[in-house]
Amino acid sequence: MTLPFATLSEFRSILARLPGPDAGALAAAGARNGQLTKPPGALGRLEDLAIWVAGWQGVEKPRCSRPQVVIFAGNHGVVAQGVSAFPAEVTVQMVANFQHGGAAINQLSRAFGAEMSVHALDLDRPTVDFTEGPAMSEDEVVAALACGWSAVDPAADVLVTGEMGIGNTTAAAALAAALFGGDPVGWVGRGTGVDDAGLKRKADAVARGLARHAGALGDPLEVLRCLGGRELAAMAGAIARARVERVPVVLDGFICTASAAVLEKAVPGALDHCVAGHVSAEGGHPRLLAALGKEPLLNLGLRLGEGSGAALALGVVKGAVACLSGMATFAEAGVSGG
Amino acid sequence: MTLPFATLSEFRSILARLPGPDAGALAAAGARNGQLTKPPGALGRLEDLAIWVAGWQGVEKPRCSRPQVVIFAGNHGVVAQGVSAFPAEVTVQMVANFQHGGAAINQLSRAFGAEMSVHALDLDRPTVDFTEGPAMSEDEVVAALACGWSAVDPAADVLVTGEMGIGNTTAAAALAAALFGGDPVGWVGRGTGVDDAGLKRKADAVARGLARHAGALGDPLEVLRCLGGRELAAMAGAIARARVERVPVVLDGFICTASAAVLEKAVPGALDHCVAGHVSAEGGHPRLLAALGKEPLLNLGLRLGEGSGAALALGVVKGAVACLSGMATFAEAGVSGG
Repeated sequence: MTLPFATLSEFRSILARLPGPDAGALAAAGARNGQLTKPPGALGRLEDLAIWVAGWQGVEKPRCSRPQVVIFAGNHGVVAQGVSAFPAEVTVQMVANFQHGGAAINQLSRAFGAEMSVHALDLDRPTVDFTEGPAMSEDEVVAALACGWSAVDPAADVLVTGEMGIGNTTAAAALAAALFGGDPVGWVGRGTGVDDAGLKRKADAVARGLARHAGALGDPLEVLRCLGGRELAAMAGAIARARVERVPVVLDGFICTASAAVLEKAVPGALDHCVAGHVSAEGGHPRLLAALGKEPLLNLGLRLGEGSGAALALGVVKGAVACLSGMATFAEAGVSGG
Repeated sequence: MTLPFATLSEFRSILARLPGPDAGALAAAGARNGQLTKPPGALGRLEDLAIWVAGWQGVEKPRCSRPQVVIFAGNHGVVAQGVSAFPAEVTVQMVANFQHGGAAINQLSRAFGAEMSVHALDLDRPTVDFTEGPAMSEDEVVAALACGWSAVDPAADVLVTGEMGIGNTTAAAALAAALFGGDPVGWVGRGTGVDDAGLKRKADAVARGLARHAGALGDPLEVLRCLGGRELAAMAGAIARARVERVPVVLDGFICTASAAVLEKAVPGALDHCVAGHVSAEGGHPRLLAALGKEPLLNLGLRLGEGSGAALALGVVKGAVACLSGMATFAEAGVSGG
């Protein structure tokens, strides 16, 4: 595949001309929904969800028979600030666990029939500690965006992006604080399980990162470069690619949503092809979803990452599209309308 | 199959000696959960859910590979009070739709690999209008309980009970008001879509039913007989059978939960093998779940019945048991513990 961008500037150009949903498919799916054998609106949010999927897929009868889960892993210089309960070596160990099929996301991908792939981004070369300098150079952030872009299968019917990276809830909190403002304390959470002192170190690291990169805060892609990480940039690249291919995306938790938010802040509406799969138990996630105007499908207290909450929400998407695409109409079934 | 009850009194005896979960399986599943490759608690509610399924199934590694969906249909004399937006003939039309695979529950059952069966209970012989007399005789309510009891496949690993019956949100509201007290207005909802006048007629019918059967209100099974309906009794019978077979149950919306509540009020703890699949948009459902101390898995505004919300929640159950049963432990994966 030839990449359509080799610089951050070329990536910006892609974001400036994103396609919308198919208006004809939206109308056809909406009309079909109104004729199905159920009282109007009785399937609640499933109805809007299925019509939305239909619009992005450009069909009257949407599908979720070929979902794709892409997982990106990266390491973070900011772990030097004592922000994680687990050592950085766990990132590479968990990548091996993904490859051998032993992680939660493997089980969830299998349960919902999703093709899953794992992409480790330079794990032996962590990003720069963002309290000391930009996390990535322009070449590095472009390479990470490109990794995400290339990972997406344009033939997938729904995409889930997930991540693994010891230290990455701190990077995500830095992104959220940079993009939406507010006290860093309100954006950090316990990640894999830091104690109160660890939580304080996270907020402090984020505050120092924001101060050091104050000049970058007006530009979302510069925020991603200076405060993000490779797996976060890769998720943003994958979500952008999905938009260009008109593949609907189910967002995962705080880290995935923070990455996605970079696109929305760069171009309002850039996440119109994304639904929030769940709201996680990680500190800033409810606030981040509210800032993006996204209502989560699930609220089950997950805080694992890996794309796990979004993969679980594939079940809801599958149910929604199965109803819209498979149900009989009142006329077909000979049922008296309401 | 020989039925273990032929009278309401014999059914009461069964409720008086219900089995509990397997303590050894609960302990083994809990210990296994603590060793899996994730931070402690990071799968949130999925962890408790999977351990709970393991306890009822009596195994360390629970499954949801053979779920069963049983749908019961009945007709209601109380429709004479103008309580539904649809004519009573829709019940039999929808049963045909279930049999031909055209309803929402058919699509959801297929999406989650559930075996589905439909049981029409004397549709040409509606229950007595409960504002005028007991909805069912003892023989009738016992026959309906027996239909539900017999419909359950003891080899199923998870059970969903659903219903169809024009007028049955009014019967369910009458059950809820009789079992838990309070103004009928707080228990009725719009069902298939009645207007404000219809809603008022529903509350009025419930109030008159409660007054007429005041002498029955202290006995939950008499409440079921006087104010319920055949499909409601059948769901109660199926849920009781599942308990005896130690099959965990996912409860559906307001009508299913009202039926189940009969058992809980008859014998506290009788619903320990049941999880609330969702909270529906039907008036009294949130209040009913709160009264039973059940936290719903999903909240997506469904109000269709048919077992649809519970069938959708099978996706969550599948994801939960897949993680507990399929994930690697820290030791197996060579991952450094937290």
